[in-house]
Amino acid sequence: MAEISPKSGERLIVKTDAVVEGRHYLASDPADLVARKLLRVNLSDLAGKGARPLGYVVAACFPDSVSEAWIAAFAAGLAQDQKVFGLPLLGGDTTATPGLASFAVTVFGSVRGRIPRRADARIGDDIWVSGYLGDGALGLLASKGALGGLSPDALAYLVDRYRLPRPRLDFGRRVLAHARASMDISDGLIADLQHICDASRVGATIEAAALPLSGAASEVLADDPDLLPTVMGGGDDYEVLFTAAPAKAAKIAAAARAVRVPATKIGRIHQGREVVVLDRGGRKVELGQRGYRHF
Amino acid sequence: MAEISPKSGERLIVKTDAVVEGRHYLASDPADLVARKLLRVNLSDLAGKGARPLGYVVAACFPDSVSEAWIAAFAAGLAQDQKVFGLPLLGGDTTATPGLASFAVTVFGSVRGRIPRRADARIGDDIWVSGYLGDGALGLLASKGALGGLSPDALAYLVDRYRLPRPRLDFGRRVLAHARASMDISDGLIADLQHICDASRVGATIEAAALPLSGAASEVLADDPDLLPTVMGGGDDYEVLFTAAPAKAAKIAAAARAVRVPATKIGRIHQGREVVVLDRGGRKVELGQRGYRHF
Repeated sequence: MAEISPKSGERLIVKTDAVVEGRHYLASDPADLVARKLLRVNLSDLAGKGARPLGYVVAACFPDSVSEAWIAAFAAGLAQDQKVFGLPLLGGDTTATPGLASFAVTVFGSVRGRIPRRADARIGDDIWVSGYLGDGALGLLASKGALGGLSPDALAYLVDRYRLPRPRLDFGRRVLAHARASMDISDGLIADLQHICDASRVGATIEAAALPLSGAASEVLADDPDLLPTVMGGGDDYEVLFTAAPAKAAKIAAAARAVRVPATKIGRIHQGREVVVLDRGGRKVELGQRGYRHF
Repeated sequence: MAEISPKSGERLIVKTDAVVEGRHYLASDPADLVARKLLRVNLSDLAGKGARPLGYVVAACFPDSVSEAWIAAFAAGLAQDQKVFGLPLLGGDTTATPGLASFAVTVFGSVRGRIPRRADARIGDDIWVSGYLGDGALGLLASKGALGGLSPDALAYLVDRYRLPRPRLDFGRRVLAHARASMDISDGLIADLQHICDASRVGATIEAAALPLSGAASEVLADDPDLLPTVMGGGDDYEVLFTAAPAKAAKIAAAARAVRVPATKIGRIHQGREVVVLDRGGRKVELGQRGYRHF
């Protein structure tokens, strides 16, 4: 039992997430990275609302067969990222299970002023994203050995991005003051933009050529352009997706510069309900995979 | 992502709990009762702090092999107790697992004024409990067919108490204003009183003859007095255990009467660190089982 105390004038938000062995990670994955990703995925939700982390609780189900070393490494991973993000552990429950490991994290954040919702997009808004798209989904492929002919540096970069997301907390706090709708991307750009369109009762068009790609992702796409749907539809990006009035563009760019994370305008909100992606020639791109399916 | 808004002047508390198939319940248990017990166990934590329920989030891991009917019954159980306790579902995450089912509930409550802690017991305090002790632990035995010669009514009563705890929310809110240390009993009277003694750096003596027993539990104990340690050490009571200055006894009794739940004085806090139980003759009772071990 713990008390949570947001500062006066701040609003408290909460998010919960479950992670399961054999579904979201493999038993062979390093335990500390499993723990850190668990926290970071939840912190990314806070980032998508411009929130400051206040703390978290965790419910951990460890298999009867788990080793002490695995639990110790898992706990060390939690402790490490508690420090990195100033995120105190407020409480928890640990139990043994005759089944597979599963973990539920509930994270608390505080927001000063307005909380940007999915339903806040308006016709005429620009669509923006933080950072780079597709690194997570390509990193999953790379970690399975499914990306041939990649430089070792690019390979290591992508696998790291898949394993250890960077929640855009500073970006969220500084930039989203100028946003209308906002959320973090966890199911893939297209699926999450569709969530915004559904909630806001609008449509959206994305320019594929405008999508921000890391050097490694550019390398992969140059080699195999058919991976574009994976970049747009794959999960594990953990970037911030938001809409804003066109008049806010300069303020957004300046705020993003201040936190040293790229902000890229990738499209526009309009009437309708659908999310459309156009290639360089203005042709509709076929979106095979909409949203992320966990392995 | 949800916002939590305690009223002005109220303090927010949080508790998380994990429940696992094959450990805390059996796959053959009715799904709606599994769901309702999950909520009630967490509500009991709020009751033990005198809190008002504000809402909850749930992370649910359903086995790949689970039936739609099981999930529907589980959801119906949650919905039923959301209504009973005025406990809104604030958010959640659902995932499929190749393993066994597991559920994590995080519950939020608000407290007006002081939050009674485990560390607040003082030498000279009376020790009190709400309701009746042992029904849960005896109900578990009864549900396994391990209690012979019991009347059908007593049997049904005990099994129901094991399956569906009654969190003492009204009792907590009304009575704990007069308490010092307080918590709910989930690990058994002796283990949880030891928690209070450890945190408060005090000792405690319980009079076995004073323990409040239901009619069914009295029937069982008359038949087999050796079950007394099960009554005191078994889990699943979900009553409120608290200490209070002797001068508060009349106010406590009146507040308990107002919510129609018995409050019983069962012992006294003193110097030391140990929890001692005395029988009618003043002899120390041997406590075999200290705290609850899940089956």
